Amino acid sequence: MAETKPALGYIGIGFMGKPMALRLLDAGYRVTIWGRSAEKLAPVAAAGAEVAASPADVARASDILFTCVSDTEAVEVVVFGDNGIAMGAAAGKILVDMSSIRPEAARDMAARLREETGMGWIDTPVSGGVPGAEQGTLAVMAGGSEADFETVRPVVAHLAGRFTLMGPNGAGQATKLVNQVIVGCTVAVLAEATKLAQDAGIDATRIPQALAGGRADSLTLQQFLPKMATGNFAPESHIRTMLKDLNAVQQQARSTNTPMPMTAMAAELHRLMAARGHGEADGTALMKLYRDEPV
Amino acid sequence: MAETKPALGYIGIGFMGKPMALRLLDAGYRVTIWGRSAEKLAPVAAAGAEVAASPADVARASDILFTCVSDTEAVEVVVFGDNGIAMGAAAGKILVDMSSIRPEAARDMAARLREETGMGWIDTPVSGGVPGAEQGTLAVMAGGSEADFETVRPVVAHLAGRFTLMGPNGAGQATKLVNQVIVGCTVAVLAEATKLAQDAGIDATRIPQALAGGRADSLTLQQFLPKMATGNFAPESHIRTMLKDLNAVQQQARSTNTPMPMTAMAAELHRLMAARGHGEADGTALMKLYRDEPV
Repeated sequence: MAETKPALGYIGIGFMGKPMALRLLDAGYRVTIWGRSAEKLAPVAAAGAEVAASPADVARASDILFTCVSDTEAVEVVVFGDNGIAMGAAAGKILVDMSSIRPEAARDMAARLREETGMGWIDTPVSGGVPGAEQGTLAVMAGGSEADFETVRPVVAHLAGRFTLMGPNGAGQATKLVNQVIVGCTVAVLAEATKLAQDAGIDATRIPQALAGGRADSLTLQQFLPKMATGNFAPESHIRTMLKDLNAVQQQARSTNTPMPMTAMAAELHRLMAARGHGEADGTALMKLYRDEPV
Repeated sequence: MAETKPALGYIGIGFMGKPMALRLLDAGYRVTIWGRSAEKLAPVAAAGAEVAASPADVARASDILFTCVSDTEAVEVVVFGDNGIAMGAAAGKILVDMSSIRPEAARDMAARLREETGMGWIDTPVSGGVPGAEQGTLAVMAGGSEADFETVRPVVAHLAGRFTLMGPNGAGQATKLVNQVIVGCTVAVLAEATKLAQDAGIDATRIPQALAGGRADSLTLQQFLPKMATGNFAPESHIRTMLKDLNAVQQQARSTNTPMPMTAMAAELHRLMAARGHGEADGTALMKLYRDEPV
């Protein structure tokens, strides 16, 4: 593996997985993919990826196998289900799970995969959204062994601006929860800030440039607020995904008795949107809670 | 004024005013200052500023006069009180008020000063904190006439990375309220996120580097979270100042019937700290609400 490029696999060709798989192909790797929707696989196959018949077959074809699926349960199925990754696993291979799942589930599944098959596991949830995935500037927070971290680092370098080992398995996921606390709360804050500006007679589309470089500046301000100000909620993320993460935060916080009043409020606002049938909408659509039009 | 450098005045030599006045002196301007505390004026006088006997005298000595004081009432006193700026005001002079005050108060006082004395007024609240003031990278949000904005722009350029005209008098202050919604909420969010990380066994001091470039990244994350993670709450801002601004936000939001659930929660957390005697503490000390030690 040191002399030649490792063979890669990628399972989970969605908003985030598609641009990442394309970047790995661009970087000259052999990439094997699998997914339930042939439609989603097609553009990546057209760019040179090989399509396997099952997650087990992807594992057989790969030295390093990326997964980026929707939640803990989806990871369990793709790894330990019928024709799952575990069935094609072997010592020396490493699973790089970019999904955002519960920290203790990552810890438990990593231990199980290692015990049963010898295959390594590193939890590597990401932040940076679709623009970050397309540009290869994601922040990737890792939990796992130092050896696995060093082995996958040259490959992850094509996807990430930052790749930081935070601790053993689960520590990457716990760091992602911290990330989601900040992002989920910020989306809710930006929605009400945008409405405050509009109600005060200010052209809210000018806010991001006016606040650039100040203490309110952030990637979310520059990327989300224009969508909120114009009412263009083109989906690049799902409210139900954020709600899933905020639920995981609340579960984790309950287990350590950590008070999270701001997160609790943000979670309920996301839940309100999901309850109104907007779970598939982009996070910026939270703005609909504050607009005069029917939600 | 086009040929020679305008004579400047600066009233309000505090956390923010001191580094700004020093930058203007460094840029070669003549700067006249005034303040109640000789101790605070001393380092700026030592750097070459002239100390006047009253705000009126600063106005007499200045073409462009900056003010940066604590709140609406303080601006009223320094402009319209005994020996206030209005007594030394004249047509052609411009007051550049960097204080954060209520938008409608800025609008009313600007109209009154112009009617009574002919002196211009531009509201220019800032964001970026002490580091931004020291480095001249503040975000400055302006409300006023285009002519006044263009006149003061070359001077403000020594203080600001961004100087954006948002609308007529009051629009700068309304934009600052939007800024404070974001910053005040973010401080509260970062405090609970830091505690979540620590309770999950993560070294929270590594969070800023891990999330750099991702969607949770911001100046506040990089500047505030390390203070929270280490418990070093060295004051560069006051909780009572933020609470004053969040109160102004709530007053403004009530007047336009704008729902602000996240801001309401953040305001009450700041109020809780003030009620416990921590009004003079730095915003990062909000962390004390989440730590085991006595508050």
